[in-house]
Amino acid sequence: MTVPPLGMEWVVDAQGCAPSRLREPERLLELVSSMLADLRLSPVAPPLVHRFPGEGGVTAMVLLAESHLTLHTFPEHGTMTLNLYSCVARPPYPFRERIERELGATRVDVRSFARGALP
Amino acid sequence: MTVPPLGMEWVVDAQGCAPSRLREPERLLELVSSMLADLRLSPVAPPLVHRFPGEGGVTAMVLLAESHLTLHTFPEHGTMTLNLYSCVARPPYPFRERIERELGATRVDVRSFARGALP
Repeated sequence: MTVPPLGMEWVVDAQGCAPSRLREPERLLELVSSMLADLRLSPVAPPLVHRFPGEGGVTAMVLLAESHLTLHTFPEHGTMTLNLYSCVARPPYPFRERIERELGATRVDVRSFARGALP
Repeated sequence: MTVPPLGMEWVVDAQGCAPSRLREPERLLELVSSMLADLRLSPVAPPLVHRFPGEGGVTAMVLLAESHLTLHTFPEHGTMTLNLYSCVARPPYPFRERIERELGATRVDVRSFARGALP
């Protein structure tokens, strides 16, 4: 018996971001909240957020009714990495354009794949 | 300039699990804690855990010094999905064997890929 896939995951890796923006939890949480609202995804708890000390980056994790979103920043590399996993179908989302605009990324790679069962 | 990859992610999808075990947050958190200890990965905050109502499953998210671990269960499908993202190198880990033994999975697919920069 083949179990149907349980949702999709998007894996987004952004390079060339403005380092200062990658150290601002408030700015990053606004971006996350805005994406989730656009996609009509529903947090079931406040985000778990950690600002690493010194020149370090930020981790944010959001537990959703539909699975999760995670974000990590590496200011020393100008890099931001994001995962969005949704167990319900979502329309295409302009990750690249949003992240270029909000974080100044010069390159954004977006991969996606099914979860829950492989062929 | 090519930015070096910022760690690895393992994407694990398990099918055929015992549904009752997928509704027990304590058992699932023990499995997660044990994996993290084996891999010498360090939580920086208590896990974020949600038990969905009725016959629903469990979501657990752990914010690590080295990135994150997430886990979702879908008892109605006998499925568990796990992500482990580590920005430091880790040795190979026997996800399949652990998950077969602890959750009774009959099939475990493990994928892995670099994060932070694509070729």
